[in-house]
Amino acid sequence: MSDPSTRPPLTREEFIDWVRREGESRYHDHHRYHHLMHDGKLTRLQLQQWVLNRYYYQTRVPIKDALILAKSEDPAFRRMWIRRIRDHDGDAAGEGGLELWLRLAEGVGLDREEVASCRSVLPGVRFACDGYVHLIRERSLLEAVASSLTEFFSPDLMTRRVLAWERHYPWIDKDTLDYFRTRPPRARQDSLEAIDFVTARATTYELQERCVAALIRKTEILWHLLDSLYTAYVEPGWGPGGARA
Amino acid sequence: MSDPSTRPPLTREEFIDWVRREGESRYHDHHRYHHLMHDGKLTRLQLQQWVLNRYYYQTRVPIKDALILAKSEDPAFRRMWIRRIRDHDGDAAGEGGLELWLRLAEGVGLDREEVASCRSVLPGVRFACDGYVHLIRERSLLEAVASSLTEFFSPDLMTRRVLAWERHYPWIDKDTLDYFRTRPPRARQDSLEAIDFVTARATTYELQERCVAALIRKTEILWHLLDSLYTAYVEPGWGPGGARA
Repeated sequence: MSDPSTRPPLTREEFIDWVRREGESRYHDHHRYHHLMHDGKLTRLQLQQWVLNRYYYQTRVPIKDALILAKSEDPAFRRMWIRRIRDHDGDAAGEGGLELWLRLAEGVGLDREEVASCRSVLPGVRFACDGYVHLIRERSLLEAVASSLTEFFSPDLMTRRVLAWERHYPWIDKDTLDYFRTRPPRARQDSLEAIDFVTARATTYELQERCVAALIRKTEILWHLLDSLYTAYVEPGWGPGGARA
Repeated sequence: MSDPSTRPPLTREEFIDWVRREGESRYHDHHRYHHLMHDGKLTRLQLQQWVLNRYYYQTRVPIKDALILAKSEDPAFRRMWIRRIRDHDGDAAGEGGLELWLRLAEGVGLDREEVASCRSVLPGVRFACDGYVHLIRERSLLEAVASSLTEFFSPDLMTRRVLAWERHYPWIDKDTLDYFRTRPPRARQDSLEAIDFVTARATTYELQERCVAALIRKTEILWHLLDSLYTAYVEPGWGPGGARA
Protein backbone atom coordinates (compact mmCIF):
# COMPACT_ATOMS: atom_id res chain seq x y z
CA MET A 1 0.00 0.00 0.00
CA SER A 2 1.52 3.31 -1.00
CA ASP A 3 1.26 6.32 1.31
CA PRO A 4 -1.90 8.17 0.24
CA SER A 5 -0.33 11.53 1.15
CA THR A 6 2.27 11.16 -1.62
CA ARG A 7 0.13 9.40 -4.23
CA PRO A 8 -1.01 11.64 -7.10
CA PRO A 9 -4.75 12.33 -7.30
CA LEU A 10 -6.93 10.29 -9.62
CA THR A 11 -8.35 12.06 -12.64
CA ARG A 12 -11.95 13.20 -12.38
CA GLU A 13 -13.08 10.20 -14.42
CA GLU A 14 -11.07 7.68 -12.39
CA PHE A 15 -12.35 9.20 -9.17
CA ILE A 16 -16.01 9.13 -10.29
CA ASP A 17 -15.44 5.56 -11.35
CA TRP A 18 -14.17 4.64 -7.89
CA VAL A 19 -17.11 6.40 -6.22
CA ARG A 20 -19.54 4.64 -8.52
CA ARG A 21 -17.95 1.23 -7.99
CA GLU A 22 -17.94 1.46 -4.18
CA GLY A 23 -21.37 3.04 -4.04
CA GLU A 24 -23.06 0.72 -6.49
CA SER A 25 -21.72 -2.50 -4.98
CA ARG A 26 -22.61 -1.49 -1.40
CA TYR A 27 -25.92 0.24 -2.11
CA HIS A 28 -28.84 -1.10 -0.09
CA ASP A 29 -30.77 -2.16 -3.18
CA HIS A 30 -28.72 -5.39 -2.84
CA HIS A 31 -30.03 -6.02 0.67
CA ARG A 32 -32.26 -9.06 1.09
CA TYR A 33 -34.97 -6.89 2.69
CA HIS A 34 -35.17 -4.89 -0.55
CA HIS A 35 -35.09 -8.09 -2.62
CA LEU A 36 -38.06 -9.41 -0.67
CA MET A 37 -39.82 -6.04 -1.00
CA HIS A 38 -39.34 -5.76 -4.74
CA ASP A 39 -40.22 -9.41 -5.34
CA GLY A 40 -43.55 -8.86 -3.58
CA LYS A 41 -42.58 -11.16 -0.72
CA LEU A 42 -42.91 -8.83 2.26
CA THR A 43 -45.94 -9.23 4.46
CA ARG A 44 -48.08 -6.21 5.17
CA LEU A 45 -46.45 -5.83 8.59
CA GLN A 46 -42.94 -6.10 7.14
CA LEU A 47 -43.69 -3.42 4.55
CA GLN A 48 -45.36 -1.19 7.12
CA GLN A 49 -42.38 -1.51 9.45
CA TRP A 50 -40.04 -0.55 6.63
CA VAL A 51 -42.11 2.61 6.06
CA LEU A 52 -42.30 3.38 9.78
CA ASN A 53 -38.60 2.86 10.48
CA ARG A 54 -37.41 4.55 7.32
CA TYR A 55 -39.41 7.62 8.37
CA TYR A 56 -36.88 8.12 11.15
CA TYR A 57 -34.16 8.23 8.51
CA GLN A 58 -36.22 10.78 6.54
CA THR A 59 -36.50 13.02 9.63
CA ARG A 60 -32.69 13.03 10.00
CA VAL A 61 -32.18 14.26 6.43
CA PRO A 62 -33.12 17.97 6.85
CA ILE A 63 -31.14 17.98 10.11
CA LYS A 64 -27.96 16.67 8.46
CA ASP A 65 -28.54 19.07 5.55
CA ALA A 66 -28.76 22.00 7.97
CA LEU A 67 -25.47 20.83 9.53
CA ILE A 68 -23.93 20.78 6.05
CA LEU A 69 -25.23 24.33 5.45
CA ALA A 70 -23.60 25.40 8.71
CA LYS A 71 -20.25 23.99 7.53
CA SER A 72 -20.13 26.13 4.42
CA GLU A 73 -18.67 29.62 4.23
CA ASP A 74 -19.99 30.10 0.70
CA PRO A 75 -23.42 31.71 0.13
CA ALA A 76 -23.54 30.22 -3.39
CA PHE A 77 -23.10 26.71 -2.02
CA ARG A 78 -25.67 27.38 0.69
CA ARG A 79 -28.18 28.68 -1.88
CA MET A 80 -27.78 25.39 -3.74
CA TRP A 81 -27.91 23.15 -0.66
CA ILE A 82 -30.80 24.89 1.14
CA ARG A 83 -33.14 23.58 -1.56
CA ARG A 84 -32.69 20.09 -0.08
CA ILE A 85 -34.11 21.25 3.25
CA ARG A 86 -37.00 23.00 1.53
CA ASP A 87 -37.67 19.84 -0.51
CA HIS A 88 -38.07 17.83 2.69
CA ASP A 89 -39.84 20.38 4.88
CA GLY A 90 -41.83 22.14 2.15
CA ASP A 91 -42.44 25.88 2.06
CA ALA A 92 -45.81 25.59 3.82
CA ALA A 93 -47.57 23.13 6.14
CA GLY A 94 -48.78 20.05 4.24
CA GLU A 95 -45.97 20.22 1.67
CA GLY A 96 -42.57 18.59 1.30
CA GLY A 97 -41.02 15.15 1.42
CA LEU A 98 -41.65 14.46 5.11
CA GLU A 99 -45.37 15.13 4.60
CA LEU A 100 -45.40 12.87 1.53
CA TRP A 101 -43.77 10.13 3.60
CA LEU A 102 -46.49 10.43 6.26
CA ARG A 103 -49.12 10.11 3.52
CA LEU A 104 -47.28 7.03 2.30
CA ALA A 105 -47.47 5.70 5.86
CA GLU A 106 -51.24 6.24 5.83
CA GLY A 107 -51.37 4.60 2.39
CA VAL A 108 -49.84 1.39 3.79
CA GLY A 109 -52.34 1.44 6.65
CA LEU A 110 -50.26 2.97 9.45
CA ASP A 111 -51.41 5.57 11.93
CA ARG A 112 -49.93 8.89 10.94
CA GLU A 113 -49.33 10.10 14.49
CA GLU A 114 -47.70 6.83 15.51
CA VAL A 115 -45.23 7.13 12.64
CA ALA A 116 -44.62 10.87 13.18
CA SER A 117 -43.83 10.27 16.86
CA CYS A 118 -40.95 7.91 15.94
CA ARG A 119 -41.59 6.08 19.22
CA SER A 120 -41.66 2.59 17.66
CA VAL A 121 -38.45 2.94 15.69
CA LEU A 122 -36.12 -0.04 16.15
CA PRO A 123 -33.04 0.70 18.30
CA GLY A 124 -30.64 -0.36 15.54
CA VAL A 125 -32.36 1.93 13.05
CA ARG A 126 -32.12 4.79 15.52
CA PHE A 127 -28.41 4.11 16.13
CA ALA A 128 -27.65 4.01 12.42
CA CYS A 129 -29.62 7.16 11.60
CA ASP A 130 -28.21 9.08 14.56
CA GLY A 131 -24.80 7.84 13.43
CA TYR A 132 -25.44 9.53 10.10
CA VAL A 133 -26.08 12.88 11.83
CA HIS A 134 -22.92 12.40 13.94
CA LEU A 135 -20.89 11.58 10.86
CA ILE A 136 -22.06 14.79 9.19
CA ARG A 137 -21.47 16.84 12.33
CA GLU A 138 -17.91 15.61 12.74
CA ARG A 139 -16.50 15.29 9.23
CA SER A 140 -15.42 18.04 6.85
CA LEU A 141 -17.84 19.71 4.47
CA LEU A 142 -16.26 17.77 1.60
CA GLU A 143 -16.74 14.39 3.31
CA ALA A 144 -20.27 15.35 4.40
CA VAL A 145 -21.20 16.14 0.81
CA ALA A 146 -19.46 12.97 -0.43
CA SER A 147 -21.58 10.88 1.94
CA SER A 148 -24.67 12.17 0.15
CA LEU A 149 -23.53 10.61 -3.12
CA THR A 150 -25.64 7.54 -2.44
CA GLU A 151 -28.34 9.63 -4.14
CA PHE A 152 -26.48 8.87 -7.32
CA PHE A 153 -28.00 5.41 -7.12
CA SER A 154 -31.41 6.19 -5.65
CA PRO A 155 -33.49 7.35 -8.68
CA ASP A 156 -33.47 3.91 -10.30
CA LEU A 157 -34.32 2.21 -7.03
CA MET A 158 -37.26 4.51 -6.39
CA THR A 159 -38.59 4.09 -9.91
CA ARG A 160 -38.38 0.31 -9.60
CA ARG A 161 -40.03 0.54 -6.18
CA VAL A 162 -43.17 2.28 -7.46
CA LEU A 163 -43.57 -0.37 -10.15
CA ALA A 164 -42.99 -3.22 -7.70
CA TRP A 165 -45.40 -1.85 -5.12
CA GLU A 166 -48.13 -1.19 -7.66
CA ARG A 167 -47.74 -4.72 -8.94
CA HIS A 168 -47.21 -6.76 -5.78
CA TYR A 169 -49.04 -4.89 -3.05
CA PRO A 170 -52.46 -4.00 -4.44
CA TRP A 171 -53.72 -3.11 -0.95
CA ILE A 172 -51.54 0.02 -0.92
CA ASP A 173 -53.32 3.26 -1.84
CA LYS A 174 -51.54 4.17 -5.12
CA ASP A 175 -52.17 7.89 -4.66
CA THR A 176 -49.85 7.84 -1.68
CA LEU A 177 -46.76 6.80 -3.64
CA ASP A 178 -45.99 10.39 -4.63
CA TYR A 179 -42.78 10.50 -2.62
CA PHE A 180 -41.19 7.92 -4.90
CA ARG A 181 -42.58 9.66 -7.97
CA THR A 182 -41.36 13.17 -7.11
CA ARG A 183 -37.94 12.29 -5.70
CA PRO A 184 -36.06 10.79 -8.70
CA PRO A 185 -35.59 14.02 -10.73
CA ARG A 186 -34.59 15.91 -7.58
CA ALA A 187 -32.24 13.18 -6.42
CA ARG A 188 -30.68 13.21 -9.88
CA GLN A 189 -30.10 16.98 -9.75
CA ASP A 190 -28.87 16.79 -6.14
CA SER A 191 -26.38 14.07 -6.91
CA LEU A 192 -25.01 15.86 -9.99
CA GLU A 193 -24.43 19.01 -7.90
CA ALA A 194 -22.79 16.92 -5.20
CA ILE A 195 -20.50 15.05 -7.61
CA ASP A 196 -19.41 18.37 -9.16
CA PHE A 197 -18.65 19.76 -5.71
CA VAL A 198 -16.76 16.67 -4.59
CA THR A 199 -14.68 16.20 -7.73
CA ALA A 200 -13.72 19.89 -7.79
CA ARG A 201 -12.57 19.91 -4.16
CA ALA A 202 -11.05 16.46 -3.65
CA THR A 203 -7.81 17.65 -5.22
CA THR A 204 -5.48 15.12 -3.59
CA TYR A 205 -5.56 11.35 -3.43
CA GLU A 206 -5.93 11.57 0.34
CA LEU A 207 -9.04 13.73 0.03
CA GLN A 208 -10.46 11.43 -2.64
CA GLU A 209 -9.89 8.49 -0.30
CA ARG A 210 -11.68 10.27 2.54
CA CYS A 211 -14.64 11.00 0.25
CA VAL A 212 -14.93 7.35 -0.68
CA ALA A 213 -14.64 6.38 3.00
CA ALA A 214 -17.50 8.76 3.89
CA LEU A 215 -19.64 7.33 1.09
CA ILE A 216 -18.92 3.78 2.29
CA ARG A 217 -19.93 4.74 5.84
CA LYS A 218 -23.16 6.13 4.46
CA THR A 219 -23.90 2.89 2.60
CA GLU A 220 -23.30 1.05 5.90
CA ILE A 221 -25.91 3.26 7.57
CA LEU A 222 -28.53 2.51 4.92
CA TRP A 223 -27.59 -1.17 5.01
CA HIS A 224 -27.82 -1.38 8.79
CA LEU A 225 -31.32 0.07 8.70
CA LEU A 226 -32.41 -2.94 6.64
CA ASP A 227 -30.36 -5.38 8.76
CA SER A 228 -32.25 -4.16 11.81
CA LEU A 229 -35.60 -4.61 10.06
CA TYR A 230 -34.62 -8.06 8.84
CA THR A 231 -33.57 -9.19 12.29
CA ALA A 232 -36.73 -7.87 13.89
CA TYR A 233 -39.40 -8.69 11.32
CA VAL A 234 -38.13 -11.38 8.93
CA GLU A 235 -35.98 -13.49 11.25
CA PRO A 236 -37.14 -12.40 14.67
CA GLY A 237 -35.61 -13.88 17.75
CA TRP A 238 -32.61 -11.59 17.95
CA GLY A 239 -34.53 -8.33 17.68
CA PRO A 240 -35.41 -5.77 20.34
CA GLY A 241 -36.20 -7.44 23.62
CA GLY A 242 -33.26 -9.82 23.30
CA ALA A 243 -32.96 -13.38 22.02
CA ARG A 244 -36.23 -15.27 21.93
CA ALA A 245 -36.79 -18.94 21.28
CA MET B 1 -31.39 33.62 46.27
CA SER B 2 -34.11 31.01 45.96
CA ASP B 3 -33.46 27.77 44.13
CA PRO B 4 -34.52 28.39 40.50
CA SER B 5 -35.62 24.77 40.13
CA THR B 6 -38.42 25.24 42.70
CA ARG B 7 -39.41 28.82 41.85
CA PRO B 8 -42.65 29.14 39.87
CA PRO B 9 -42.31 30.45 36.33
CA LEU B 10 -42.89 34.11 35.59
CA THR B 11 -46.00 34.98 33.62
CA ARG B 12 -45.52 35.66 29.91
CA GLU B 13 -45.66 39.42 30.56
CA GLU B 14 -43.18 39.31 33.46
CA PHE B 15 -40.82 37.16 31.43
CA ILE B 16 -40.97 39.45 28.38
CA ASP B 17 -40.39 42.36 30.72
CA TRP B 18 -37.26 40.71 32.11
CA VAL B 19 -35.97 39.89 28.62
CA ARG B 20 -36.63 43.46 27.53
CA ARG B 21 -34.96 44.98 30.58
CA GLU B 22 -31.78 42.90 30.29
CA GLY B 23 -31.63 43.23 26.53
CA GLU B 24 -32.30 46.94 26.36
CA SER B 25 -29.84 47.91 29.08
CA ARG B 26 -27.01 45.81 27.61
CA TYR B 27 -27.69 46.38 23.93
CA HIS B 28 -24.71 47.69 21.98
CA ASP B 29 -26.47 50.92 21.02
CA HIS B 30 -25.14 52.18 24.39
CA HIS B 31 -21.54 51.46 23.42
CA ARG B 32 -19.33 54.51 23.00
CA TYR B 33 -18.33 53.37 19.51
CA HIS B 34 -21.97 53.61 18.48
CA HIS B 35 -22.32 56.96 20.26
CA LEU B 36 -19.39 58.30 18.27
CA MET B 37 -20.83 56.82 15.07
CA HIS B 38 -24.28 58.28 15.52
CA ASP B 39 -22.94 61.66 16.62
CA GLY B 40 -20.95 61.92 13.41
CA LYS B 41 -17.63 61.69 15.24
CA LEU B 42 -16.07 58.63 13.64
CA THR B 43 -13.32 59.19 11.12
CA ARG B 44 -13.61 57.60 7.72
CA LEU B 45 -11.19 54.87 8.78
CA GLN B 46 -13.10 54.18 12.00
CA LEU B 47 -16.39 53.86 10.14
CA GLN B 48 -14.82 51.69 7.46
CA GLN B 49 -13.32 49.39 10.07
CA TRP B 50 -16.69 49.02 11.73
CA VAL B 51 -18.17 47.96 8.38
CA LEU B 52 -15.27 45.60 7.65
CA ASN B 53 -15.24 43.95 11.07
CA ARG B 54 -18.99 43.74 11.40
CA TYR B 55 -19.05 41.88 8.07
CA TYR B 56 -17.44 38.96 9.86
CA TYR B 57 -20.37 38.96 12.28
CA GLN B 58 -22.77 39.01 9.31
CA THR B 59 -21.07 35.96 7.79
CA ARG B 60 -21.59 34.01 11.04
CA VAL B 61 -25.35 34.67 11.03
CA PRO B 62 -26.46 32.17 8.34
CA ILE B 63 -24.09 29.61 9.88
CA LYS B 64 -25.61 29.95 13.35
CA ASP B 65 -29.09 29.93 11.79
CA ALA B 66 -28.29 26.66 10.01
CA LEU B 67 -27.12 25.22 13.36
CA ILE B 68 -30.45 26.30 14.87
CA LEU B 69 -32.29 24.59 11.99
CA ALA B 70 -30.32 21.42 12.71
CA LYS B 71 -31.42 21.52 16.36
CA SER B 72 -35.11 21.47 15.54
CA GLU B 73 -37.19 18.34 15.05
CA ASP B 74 -40.17 20.38 13.82
CA PRO B 75 -40.64 21.04 10.08
CA ALA B 76 -42.99 23.96 10.91
CA PHE B 77 -40.29 25.66 13.01
CA ARG B 78 -37.70 24.99 10.32
CA ARG B 79 -39.96 26.45 7.61
CA MET B 80 -40.14 29.63 9.71
CA TRP B 81 -36.45 29.78 10.57
CA ILE B 82 -35.05 28.91 7.12
CA ARG B 83 -36.27 32.30 5.90
CA ARG B 84 -33.49 33.91 7.96
CA ILE B 85 -30.85 32.03 6.00
CA ARG B 86 -32.50 32.94 2.71
CA ASP B 87 -32.67 36.58 3.83
CA HIS B 88 -28.91 36.62 4.35
CA ASP B 89 -27.80 34.46 1.43
CA GLY B 90 -30.51 35.46 -1.05
CA ASP B 91 -32.15 33.03 -3.46
CA ALA B 92 -29.77 33.92 -6.30
CA ALA B 93 -26.27 35.34 -6.68
CA GLY B 94 -26.24 39.11 -6.09
CA GLU B 95 -29.14 39.00 -3.63
CA GLY B 96 -29.47 38.84 0.15
CA GLY B 97 -28.14 40.59 3.21
CA LEU B 98 -24.49 39.53 2.83
CA GLU B 99 -24.43 40.99 -0.66
CA LEU B 100 -26.04 44.22 0.59
CA TRP B 101 -23.37 44.43 3.26
CA LEU B 102 -20.61 44.12 0.65
CA ARG B 103 -22.26 46.94 -1.31
CA LEU B 104 -22.31 48.96 1.88
CA ALA B 105 -18.59 48.24 2.22
CA GLU B 106 -18.03 49.59 -1.29
CA GLY B 107 -20.22 52.58 -0.41
CA VAL B 108 -17.88 53.53 2.44
CA GLY B 109 -14.87 53.20 0.15
CA LEU B 110 -13.64 49.72 1.01
CA ASP B 111 -12.41 47.09 -1.39
CA ARG B 112 -15.11 44.46 -1.76
CA GLU B 113 -12.73 41.53 -2.03
CA GLU B 114 -10.71 42.65 0.98
CA VAL B 115 -13.87 42.75 3.09
CA ALA B 116 -15.24 39.46 1.70
CA SER B 117 -11.96 37.70 2.50
CA CYS B 118 -12.30 38.55 6.22
CA ARG B 119 -8.50 38.57 6.42
CA SER B 120 -8.25 41.94 8.21
CA VAL B 121 -10.82 41.19 10.91
CA LEU B 122 -9.57 42.08 14.41
CA PRO B 123 -8.73 39.05 16.58
CA GLY B 124 -11.16 40.11 19.32
CA VAL B 125 -13.96 40.47 16.78
CA ARG B 126 -13.20 37.03 15.43
CA PHE B 127 -13.17 35.50 18.94
CA ALA B 128 -16.50 37.10 19.82
CA CYS B 129 -18.22 36.11 16.57
CA ASP B 130 -16.83 32.58 16.68
CA GLY B 131 -17.99 32.49 20.30
CA TYR B 132 -21.49 33.22 19.04
CA VAL B 133 -21.38 30.19 16.73
CA HIS B 134 -20.02 28.02 19.58
CA LEU B 135 -22.77 29.25 21.90
CA ILE B 136 -25.41 28.25 19.35
CA ARG B 137 -23.76 24.91 18.66
CA GLU B 138 -23.63 23.98 22.36
CA ARG B 139 -26.81 25.33 23.89
CA SER B 140 -30.35 24.02 23.56
CA LEU B 141 -32.65 25.10 20.74
CA LEU B 142 -34.59 27.24 23.22
CA GLU B 143 -31.47 29.08 24.42
CA ALA B 144 -30.20 29.46 20.86
CA VAL B 145 -33.45 31.10 19.81
CA ALA B 146 -33.45 33.26 22.96
CA SER B 147 -29.99 34.56 22.10
CA SER B 148 -31.44 35.92 18.87
CA LEU B 149 -33.82 38.19 20.78
CA THR B 150 -31.36 41.07 20.49
CA GLU B 151 -33.19 41.63 17.21
CA PHE B 152 -36.02 42.93 19.33
CA PHE B 153 -33.92 46.08 19.75
CA SER B 154 -32.26 46.33 16.36
CA PRO B 155 -34.95 47.95 14.13
CA ASP B 156 -34.78 51.29 15.98
CA LEU B 157 -31.00 51.25 15.93
CA MET B 158 -30.85 50.60 12.20
CA THR B 159 -33.40 53.28 11.43
CA ARG B 160 -31.45 55.82 13.51
CA ARG B 161 -28.26 54.68 11.80
CA VAL B 162 -29.45 55.49 8.29
CA LEU B 163 -30.49 58.99 9.40
CA ALA B 164 -27.20 59.58 11.24
CA TRP B 165 -25.07 58.36 8.35
CA GLU B 166 -26.94 60.43 5.77
CA ARG B 167 -26.54 63.49 7.95
CA HIS B 168 -23.00 63.14 9.28
CA TYR B 169 -21.09 61.21 6.63
CA PRO B 170 -21.95 62.84 3.30
CA TRP B 171 -19.07 60.99 1.61
CA ILE B 172 -20.94 57.69 1.91
CA ASP B 173 -22.85 56.59 -1.21
CA LYS B 174 -26.46 56.75 0.03
CA ASP B 175 -27.63 54.09 -2.41
CA THR B 176 -25.54 51.55 -0.54
CA LEU B 177 -27.45 51.89 2.75
CA ASP B 178 -30.10 49.42 1.63
CA TYR B 179 -29.12 46.84 4.23
CA PHE B 180 -30.27 49.16 7.03
CA ARG B 181 -33.41 50.05 5.10
CA THR B 182 -34.52 46.50 4.33
CA ARG B 183 -33.65 44.87 7.65
CA PRO B 184 -35.96 46.60 10.19
CA PRO B 185 -39.29 45.04 9.05
CA ARG B 186 -37.65 41.62 8.78
CA ALA B 187 -35.93 41.97 12.15
CA ARG B 188 -39.28 42.96 13.66
CA GLN B 189 -40.99 39.87 12.24
CA ASP B 190 -38.07 37.63 13.20
CA SER B 191 -38.05 38.88 16.78
CA LEU B 192 -41.82 38.47 17.19
CA GLU B 193 -41.57 34.86 15.99
CA ALA B 194 -38.65 34.27 18.34
CA ILE B 195 -40.37 35.81 21.38
CA ASP B 196 -43.45 33.65 20.72
CA PHE B 197 -41.28 30.55 20.50
CA VAL B 198 -39.31 31.39 23.63
CA THR B 199 -42.28 32.36 25.81
CA ALA B 200 -44.20 29.24 24.78
CA ARG B 201 -41.33 26.90 25.58
CA ALA B 202 -39.66 28.46 28.60
CA THR B 203 -42.27 26.89 30.88
CA THR B 204 -40.21 26.86 34.10
CA TYR B 205 -38.33 29.59 35.93
CA GLU B 206 -35.10 27.71 35.32
CA LEU B 207 -35.67 27.70 31.56
CA GLN B 208 -36.62 31.37 31.63
CA GLU B 209 -33.39 32.11 33.47
CA ARG B 210 -31.37 30.17 30.90
CA CYS B 211 -33.02 32.13 28.09
CA VAL B 212 -32.10 35.41 29.73
CA ALA B 213 -28.54 34.15 30.28
CA ALA B 214 -28.24 33.27 26.59
CA LEU B 215 -29.53 36.70 25.61
CA ILE B 216 -27.03 38.37 27.95
CA ARG B 217 -24.18 36.35 26.44
CA LYS B 218 -25.31 37.49 23.00
CA THR B 219 -25.27 41.15 24.10
CA GLU B 220 -21.72 40.57 25.38
CA ILE B 221 -20.71 39.30 21.96
CA LEU B 222 -22.08 42.39 20.19
CA TRP B 223 -20.53 44.61 22.85
CA HIS B 224 -17.13 42.96 22.57
CA LEU B 225 -17.11 43.54 18.83
CA LEU B 226 -17.27 47.28 19.51
CA ASP B 227 -14.79 47.07 22.40
CA SER B 228 -12.28 45.51 20.02
CA LEU B 229 -12.86 48.25 17.44
CA TYR B 230 -12.56 50.95 20.09
CA THR B 231 -9.29 49.57 21.40
CA ALA B 232 -7.82 49.25 17.93
CA TYR B 233 -9.09 52.36 16.17
CA VAL B 234 -10.19 54.96 18.73
CA GLU B 235 -7.70 54.37 21.53
CA PRO B 236 -4.98 52.38 19.80
CA GLY B 237 -1.98 51.22 21.71
CA TRP B 238 -3.55 48.09 23.17
CA GLY B 239 -4.85 46.73 19.89
CA PRO B 240 -3.47 43.95 17.72
CA GLY B 241 0.29 43.94 17.72
CA GLY B 242 0.41 44.47 21.48
CA ALA B 243 0.88 47.55 23.63
CA ARG B 244 2.33 50.51 21.77
CA ALA B 245 3.56 53.80 23.21
